[in-house]
Amino acid sequence: MSGTSLKPPLMITMGDPAGIGPEIIAAAVRLRPSLLQQVVVAGDVPTLQRALDITRHLHGADAVKVQPVDALSSWPAPTPGHLTVVQACERAGPVPWGHVSATAGRMAAECIGWAARAALSGQARAVVTAPIHKEAFAAAGIEHPGHTEYLQALAAAHLGVPVEQVPVRMMLSAPGLRTVLLSIHVSLREALRAVTQEQILQTLHITVAHFGRLGWPQIRIAVAGLNPHAGEGGLFGREEMETIAPAVAQAQARGWSVSGPYAPDTVFMRARQGEFDVVLAMYHDQGLIPVKLLGLDDGVNTTLGLPFVRTSPDHGTAFDLAGTARASPSSLLAAIELADHATG
Amino acid sequence: MSGTSLKPPLMITMGDPAGIGPEIIAAAVRLRPSLLQQVVVAGDVPTLQRALDITRHLHGADAVKVQPVDALSSWPAPTPGHLTVVQACERAGPVPWGHVSATAGRMAAECIGWAARAALSGQARAVVTAPIHKEAFAAAGIEHPGHTEYLQALAAAHLGVPVEQVPVRMMLSAPGLRTVLLSIHVSLREALRAVTQEQILQTLHITVAHFGRLGWPQIRIAVAGLNPHAGEGGLFGREEMETIAPAVAQAQARGWSVSGPYAPDTVFMRARQGEFDVVLAMYHDQGLIPVKLLGLDDGVNTTLGLPFVRTSPDHGTAFDLAGTARASPSSLLAAIELADHATG
Repeated sequence: MSGTSLKPPLMITMGDPAGIGPEIIAAAVRLRPSLLQQVVVAGDVPTLQRALDITRHLHGADAVKVQPVDALSSWPAPTPGHLTVVQACERAGPVPWGHVSATAGRMAAECIGWAARAALSGQARAVVTAPIHKEAFAAAGIEHPGHTEYLQALAAAHLGVPVEQVPVRMMLSAPGLRTVLLSIHVSLREALRAVTQEQILQTLHITVAHFGRLGWPQIRIAVAGLNPHAGEGGLFGREEMETIAPAVAQAQARGWSVSGPYAPDTVFMRARQGEFDVVLAMYHDQGLIPVKLLGLDDGVNTTLGLPFVRTSPDHGTAFDLAGTARASPSSLLAAIELADHATG
Repeated sequence: MSGTSLKPPLMITMGDPAGIGPEIIAAAVRLRPSLLQQVVVAGDVPTLQRALDITRHLHGADAVKVQPVDALSSWPAPTPGHLTVVQACERAGPVPWGHVSATAGRMAAECIGWAARAALSGQARAVVTAPIHKEAFAAAGIEHPGHTEYLQALAAAHLGVPVEQVPVRMMLSAPGLRTVLLSIHVSLREALRAVTQEQILQTLHITVAHFGRLGWPQIRIAVAGLNPHAGEGGLFGREEMETIAPAVAQAQARGWSVSGPYAPDTVFMRARQGEFDVVLAMYHDQGLIPVKLLGLDDGVNTTLGLPFVRTSPDHGTAFDLAGTARASPSSLLAAIELADHATG
């Protein structure tokens, strides 16, 4: 297998060490031992060792040990049966499971920084992130509300440009449905203010560019409305007429396969039935509700617009499950597969 | 069969005569001929005759003819093979299929009025409404944006009280999921303003009262949050902490089985998995997106809070399908069944 490992590795960040991140990584490599030759974890060595310990009973008797490395210069040479882990954060773990702490938030953030730098320098071919806990992230003094914004800031710093010049968007995928979000981690009240022609066009541009790079420039994008029934001809809101429809017209004038605005409560069903390839959602929950409902165990989050491929599982830290080794690694595996295919 | 018809009939309104309403009623009675003994249509006789004509090829060779009646005093005595129709509106039809018109909107409104009065006076045991077109409704000068508000006004007028004293809410049901909506036909911007403790408590009260009358007082109600991740501890909005959680606490103090607020993007999945019996959604699309995604052909809308049972199919007038006899009557049949069970 090591002969196939000449490509740079996929980096997986461990996520919040008090959550299920480390143990779903451990469960994933126990379920698919071939991953051991493909991935490097940016994490905390004792935390990953604990995760391997508590998942020992899963998926057969294969012993898997941590192989600590200091840098990716030792790649490609994982010893068979070993999970390569870079000590990417302060060695403060293992922390107690299921508790919000500034320490855990700081460790998670440091691992993300390490993985992003590896990808930005070409030493890693993609980044897959395990879940963080946003309150722990905030308690650690990280000013970014989530992965997406933090990775954007790291990419902008690497490129030496303001963050505005690295606009990113979140795309969620579930079996049969993809949705790109106009805004993410802001209140619904604030999300309404983000519904502008400029924001819609930029999101469509990022989406078309992403799929263009994957060889799919004419991807059919449906733009959802904002209001019930897409405003019902102006009776329940005017954003569709005044903002969304003009943005769609401009996108069409650029030659993109964009249509809408469509009634939010049926556009996802129509996409799932094959009428569209991706739905542009006007706010977080408009897109997340259908994806979570369909995704169950294998939804994947992709960040569009970064200089590298980044995917993540479509769930949180599940503090209530942490330490039980019962959390399913299936969304993480789907995220690893998607990152692998996009960079393979 | 007529021996079973001593109960007052179920009234079905024909909906917008330019839409699929009349033909799905015709298709429904062709599919379930026993319904002919149970239902009376509040409609336009020539429009229903046209609907029976264009559905003649469906579901076997049974001839079904319109039996016009002037009043429900002739009930129970439908002649076998006849669909009882009250001329409940001006005889202006049939109107052309698929066009918004004030005439069609006015006819639809008159039929709703007729059916509501029959139910309010006890001559009909429930009302099932076929879809109206909201722009036609508005073009006809009806000041109510939809069925729910119009029925509320009719009930208040009948009772001689202000509409505020007949608070109603919309509940949507799909296989495995029920959701009650805090607000309906208003812009999302306006829906945010409806998220108050008073509105939440009133909605919970109406919901508990409805299910209490059906013999299910301890129905488990999950209250959805408003913001992404239910505000993530105040990071993405404070309505959960300042408004929704206090309302839930008050509901619990009244002895109701209410919990939340829960993250909007997972609460519907959890309800579907059996954790809750009904989800209180904070705005129209929050509840409608999951119901439509799951409901497909058999979602049903129920109005809670009226002095009579009212259900309707969970779809619109489908002007593009009107006149083709291809629209599925399955959601209408589910609505008839639900009304029948609730009053049987």
